[in-house]
Amino acid sequence: MREAVHAATLAELVDKGYAALTVEGVAQRAGVHKTTVYRRWKDRESLLVDALAEHLAVDVPVPDTGTIEGDLRALARSLVQSYTSPTGRAVLAAMFTGAAGLPEIAAAGGHVFRDRLTRAEPVVRRAVERGELPAGTDPGEVLKTLAAPVYLRLLVTGDPVDETTADQAARVTLAAALAGAFVPR
Amino acid sequence: MREAVHAATLAELVDKGYAALTVEGVAQRAGVHKTTVYRRWKDRESLLVDALAEHLAVDVPVPDTGTIEGDLRALARSLVQSYTSPTGRAVLAAMFTGAAGLPEIAAAGGHVFRDRLTRAEPVVRRAVERGELPAGTDPGEVLKTLAAPVYLRLLVTGDPVDETTADQAARVTLAAALAGAFVPR
Repeated sequence: MREAVHAATLAELVDKGYAALTVEGVAQRAGVHKTTVYRRWKDRESLLVDALAEHLAVDVPVPDTGTIEGDLRALARSLVQSYTSPTGRAVLAAMFTGAAGLPEIAAAGGHVFRDRLTRAEPVVRRAVERGELPAGTDPGEVLKTLAAPVYLRLLVTGDPVDETTADQAARVTLAAALAGAFVPR
Repeated sequence: MREAVHAATLAELVDKGYAALTVEGVAQRAGVHKTTVYRRWKDRESLLVDALAEHLAVDVPVPDTGTIEGDLRALARSLVQSYTSPTGRAVLAAMFTGAAGLPEIAAAGGHVFRDRLTRAEPVVRRAVERGELPAGTDPGEVLKTLAAPVYLRLLVTGDPVDETTADQAARVTLAAALAGAFVPR
């Protein structure tokens, strides 16, 4: 039941947007009674936070291509794919714009970001172990630098986001990492 | 009159937030009649877009310290200062979160960003002329990489933004630029 309600929540979000999202609409789409939904989630905000967290936890796989260049490129491309799908666009809009006035949703956005970051850190640690990157390279800083231009385009400039964006982000991040710019001073 | 109304608009935005911003409130604070405001701006959205554009056009000065390292650090620090002041926080919230459902405001955010970017491009061009950076370095890409981690923290992660953030952004951007990562392939 939980999965069906999560899927229905995201589908409603994509179709109708955050402002028109209702527990009734989600229940109807999931084929359950709305009291069943209310038994588990107290309101539409907690339902949405839960669905977003679940969606985003599995949506960006952590690569292991054997090189830091390959891994950074794969990560950046997954991030771009994740946010340029219809669900991804709706998820992004819900987390960082339309519903950002709601503290729970804003907190969920930050939480999901940190969660993804932590799961991807082995990519950087393996590169340090292989001797590809300088000892002491900060994994979190590397990964934030990789993700930042994608979010900048999605949330600020509105420029197109595609594979070229991902590859350029990987190129810049790798060059800075090789130069030791992520080793704390 | 225009300047007084702009200043009153931003002051109202800081005090009350976007949702509670009204033309009446702005007029009262500026000491003018609301019909005077309506003669010039058709609604609160156009008033706000105008005030934001004016505020942001002058708020990040373009440095000329003599080195690309100094210029990038000064630019990043100005950007951080601009968004961590009370007015800056309110401006950011209005442009990229609370009011982002309004196409005019979202477009203003993107427009203001591009405007700032264009004004700062000489920083990179001068560095290329001085031989500090490789020929063909793309100024826009350098400056977006510099700004991206600041926006990521402000809009996504909610991590603190301070001088350390600015200096680290400058360090990473400089390392990538020196390595030629902003020369189109």
